[in-house]
Amino acid sequence: MTQTLDALLEARTRRPAAAIPLAEPVPVDAVPTPALVVDVAALERNLDRMAGFLAARGVGLRPHAKMHKCPEVARRQLERGAVGICCAKLAEAEVMHAAGMDRILLTSPVVTDAAIARLLRLVAAGGDVRTVVDDAAVVARLGAAAQAAGVEVAVLVDLDPDMGRTGIARGAPALELVRHIAATAGVRFTGLQQYSGQLQHLASHAERAAGAREALARGRETADLVEADGHAVELFTGGGTGTYDIDSLPLDDGSGFTDLQCGSYAFMDEEYEAIGRDESGRAERFEPALTVHVTAVSRPREGLITVDGGIKAFAADTSRPAALDADGAHLPGIRYHFGGDEHGILRLKEGAPALRVGDRLRFAPSHCDPTVNLHEWIHAARDGLVTELWPVAARGCGW
Amino acid sequence: MTQTLDALLEARTRRPAAAIPLAEPVPVDAVPTPALVVDVAALERNLDRMAGFLAARGVGLRPHAKMHKCPEVARRQLERGAVGICCAKLAEAEVMHAAGMDRILLTSPVVTDAAIARLLRLVAAGGDVRTVVDDAAVVARLGAAAQAAGVEVAVLVDLDPDMGRTGIARGAPALELVRHIAATAGVRFTGLQQYSGQLQHLASHAERAAGAREALARGRETADLVEADGHAVELFTGGGTGTYDIDSLPLDDGSGFTDLQCGSYAFMDEEYEAIGRDESGRAERFEPALTVHVTAVSRPREGLITVDGGIKAFAADTSRPAALDADGAHLPGIRYHFGGDEHGILRLKEGAPALRVGDRLRFAPSHCDPTVNLHEWIHAARDGLVTELWPVAARGCGW
Repeated sequence: MTQTLDALLEARTRRPAAAIPLAEPVPVDAVPTPALVVDVAALERNLDRMAGFLAARGVGLRPHAKMHKCPEVARRQLERGAVGICCAKLAEAEVMHAAGMDRILLTSPVVTDAAIARLLRLVAAGGDVRTVVDDAAVVARLGAAAQAAGVEVAVLVDLDPDMGRTGIARGAPALELVRHIAATAGVRFTGLQQYSGQLQHLASHAERAAGAREALARGRETADLVEADGHAVELFTGGGTGTYDIDSLPLDDGSGFTDLQCGSYAFMDEEYEAIGRDESGRAERFEPALTVHVTAVSRPREGLITVDGGIKAFAADTSRPAALDADGAHLPGIRYHFGGDEHGILRLKEGAPALRVGDRLRFAPSHCDPTVNLHEWIHAARDGLVTELWPVAARGCGW
Repeated sequence: MTQTLDALLEARTRRPAAAIPLAEPVPVDAVPTPALVVDVAALERNLDRMAGFLAARGVGLRPHAKMHKCPEVARRQLERGAVGICCAKLAEAEVMHAAGMDRILLTSPVVTDAAIARLLRLVAAGGDVRTVVDDAAVVARLGAAAQAAGVEVAVLVDLDPDMGRTGIARGAPALELVRHIAATAGVRFTGLQQYSGQLQHLASHAERAAGAREALARGRETADLVEADGHAVELFTGGGTGTYDIDSLPLDDGSGFTDLQCGSYAFMDEEYEAIGRDESGRAERFEPALTVHVTAVSRPREGLITVDGGIKAFAADTSRPAALDADGAHLPGIRYHFGGDEHGILRLKEGAPALRVGDRLRFAPSHCDPTVNLHEWIHAARDGLVTELWPVAARGCGW
């Protein structure tokens, strides 16, 4: 049976997304590898910590679902008071909306007429779906299409914090775009977004703090400019796991972000672990809830063990995965090297455990977002037993 | 309804894998981005070239399906005389077998009892399913399990070409393992595998040739040793897209590989393009049949354009994607930088085309295997029209 491309893409975003309970729990050390495993208790502690931390500061949490792409995680975040979720891509938002998460902020611009049409269907489907804009021509087309469809789209202006990825320059250019939105039927200005991705992984907390405070102050200046011009800034959203403790503090005048877009805190990864290690100043510690379990499949020579997880099991864009023991602590003497698509090669040094072919190991990925995106399912484990599979329902949904 | 984990994993490998014809062809420049696109005519020319080249040299082609994970491509390879396909992982083999490709060599060791049980089911399901081994203890367990299941498994001994990933040392250790196999009921020795992954991307053809000839000679010495001991080496398999023209030449005594495991030649990528550029000596040129189409979504400042494909659309393990024109030639003046999970940032220099938000571009990925693995479908295009979606059926099937 032939179908249209649109129908096929739409069907992809409506695959079953809910947790699949297993008829019998499986010990976590018995699931076929490489396997993406989440310790549900650790995940839920992480979710509680961030929710509690930001609630105490009176700042909203709008967690980024691009990290987990998993409705089961998003649902837990909303149950703990998240004001909504962020999605990076339209197809990701379609998955989340179909799964019942209907308070969605699209954090990347939607620019083509075809994509705008899909966005309008999502807005019409209900809930609170908003998008960011950074281009006047796109605003004009979005407004015209929304009018034609009989809907109004809530938009935020995306500010570029001198990162050069998306967003319009702060100050006059941003104000001009806000005025353009205010003058355009079909779109409604509801706030500003400013995400300083370039600050999130700076090694020093002091450097992150300095950068984040300056970015916030400059973003707020634009917010003030916009409000002085008569446009209410209902939302001012930004921030991430690297700066949540900084971005949740108000400026001297009491203003600040209305909500933060942290994502990685839920699962954590080696990159974020590394920047958290020497920081007595940080209020909360997030646990490595996400691991990839692998099996030793070869011992090509003394001091080397090859495991069955390579660049198709671990994202390879930053650093290397780290071997963990059952308590989440680093295993000594094991250094992972990517060994191509399918393998990792472990160099074993003094202090390494004795490893044989068939042994299992667990690794914290270096970068959680693209690692999760490689896997079909999250093996949801409690007390060492996998009780459910959680579909990574929006995996690959980039369009 | 609850299910067992095994049943869920099994069901995953039986998802529809055949091409999905579109009710109406869609212009390739109208499919939602980021989109993985294969020019079917270019693909088929690549398949014809390699098939013809190796046939003329009397060497078999056993293409590696880990590259494309797509039964539609495997079928075309077999139709052109491939002696079988290679799979890297058991779940990948399960997908291919379920889709009708039943001559499969598993090129990575299968070591756990659970994985061995799945391998035995695949062998029992028919066709010609073989696996590699590099460990005596695994051979013992595999043989015992095969006997208990009433099947015999054809195995190849994996030789380590001093790469240190998988395989046993050549010479006496390999011979000892062959003898062990010969003495073990349930397994049948059928040949040797030697894959020199470390040679495939050396920039100089002369260096690749020197390395590959030495590796082949040393591998053949082991083959001679094994044959002199009374064990027929039916298959001696190895080689890749970087060395196919070298590895298909016999040694002075007329011996050589029986078949080559090339994968990337079908789609090609920037890494393999780069090593092919200055080689007058190579007999065949393979075309960039695979591109990822993206859309410009932001223009944060003069000289920068941000597109909607980042590390979830392009593998980021090697170099950067390259912008191509409609004829597959490099577009001048555009340099791609990874801009996080969802974006690429193009730095535009002299000679770059004028680009606006909403414009489409196509990029050749730096590394085809892990790029394909990120996508749900291949958009199969002929003459600029997408006529079918080809499921990347084994995507994510690493277990």
